Amino acid sequence: MSTYPVSERTKMKRGHKRASYDVELVHSIIDEAYICHVGAKMMDRPMVQPTAHWREGNKLYIHGSSKNGLFQTLIKGEEACITITILDGLVMARSSFHHSANYRSVMIFSKAKLIENRDEKKRLLNLMMLKITPERFDEIREPNAKELKATTVLEFDLVEVSAKVRTGPPVDDEEDYALPVWAGVTPLTLEKGKALDDPRWLDDHGKNDEE
Amino acid sequence: MSTYPVSERTKMKRGHKRASYDVELVHSIIDEAYICHVGAKMMDRPMVQPTAHWREGNKLYIHGSSKNGLFQTLIKGEEACITITILDGLVMARSSFHHSANYRSVMIFSKAKLIENRDEKKRLLNLMMLKITPERFDEIREPNAKELKATTVLEFDLVEVSAKVRTGPPVDDEEDYALPVWAGVTPLTLEKGKALDDPRWLDDHGKNDEE
Repeated sequence: MSTYPVSERTKMKRGHKRASYDVELVHSIIDEAYICHVGAKMMDRPMVQPTAHWREGNKLYIHGSSKNGLFQTLIKGEEACITITILDGLVMARSSFHHSANYRSVMIFSKAKLIENRDEKKRLLNLMMLKITPERFDEIREPNAKELKATTVLEFDLVEVSAKVRTGPPVDDEEDYALPVWAGVTPLTLEKGKALDDPRWLDDHGKNDEE
Repeated sequence: MSTYPVSERTKMKRGHKRASYDVELVHSIIDEAYICHVGAKMMDRPMVQPTAHWREGNKLYIHGSSKNGLFQTLIKGEEACITITILDGLVMARSSFHHSANYRSVMIFSKAKLIENRDEKKRLLNLMMLKITPERFDEIREPNAKELKATTVLEFDLVEVSAKVRTGPPVDDEEDYALPVWAGVTPLTLEKGKALDDPRWLDDHGKNDEE
């Protein structure tokens, strides 16, 4: 089992039992989630933005407009704290106090590296498409030179990284187990619904399909 | 329609069409989401932690252990950026570049106010239970004095607030509409699954129920 080294900041001060530095677990959480929350100091004040992310090996990637203020700040060398959270359930205890959540989260401290090489940028953006829509990957139009120029791709080394995971039923105070209140877990999952056709795609293809 | 005032930081520099300052919309996003991501400077470095939140009127609340480092930092007066994101779908375009996400997000800049009065703290924690588990609210054991002491509740005024929303189908470049690739939206929703009984609840009640 490969693990990340524990740093002063990734060392869990509380909730040790929920902490993990397991590389495989960290990667699985990163890969399952579609979005992360990227935090950094901007003009000495905090800023947290949601954005899509993807991973290759031990590096995390985000992309955005080259005009995005947070991206500009990160390119200038401000450190990021990137947090990814998958909510797995609501933990219903017998006491208000012991209610909790089941979740899997990852926290990454890292500075951004700007991907400048156009071919590398294109290769990395293709990896994002393979994550989001592998079955359509061969059909969609690749980014052109203008689009690549307008897109900033940032790379973060996964070095100062920790995961935090809670699973299982509530843990109540012993005397509360006698209370006549239901206890357990309400599972939560992010479900894909039935695909909604773009109206303009339907205009071009819908009728043919029905004939 | 009541709206939040636009500040230097909540003014959208890009993506104006997605920006909203509508109070009702902001409140609805806050109320639907179970978790937020709280960012602040900690020892001059960024920190982003996920946590549960709830709302009353025009105030947002979070709670945690009184030993939590980020909470201590916020109590000392560091400003927070609190971001809430609901991912509604993956937007599948004809070109890689125009892929996007449908989402509703809220960003709040605010300093924390520590709730010190024990009765007020209890009242606010009860509001959280009413959000999470209204149908069990009358049955669960309320927090006792020791638990209230161990719990920190922080209040944030909703003043410097903005929402960002994307809905609808992809918007491709005109010439790409002729490409023979499906386009549309894959909806994503956070679904509640079948409740999982706590094994110890089942021990006490499960067999009786079946008799």
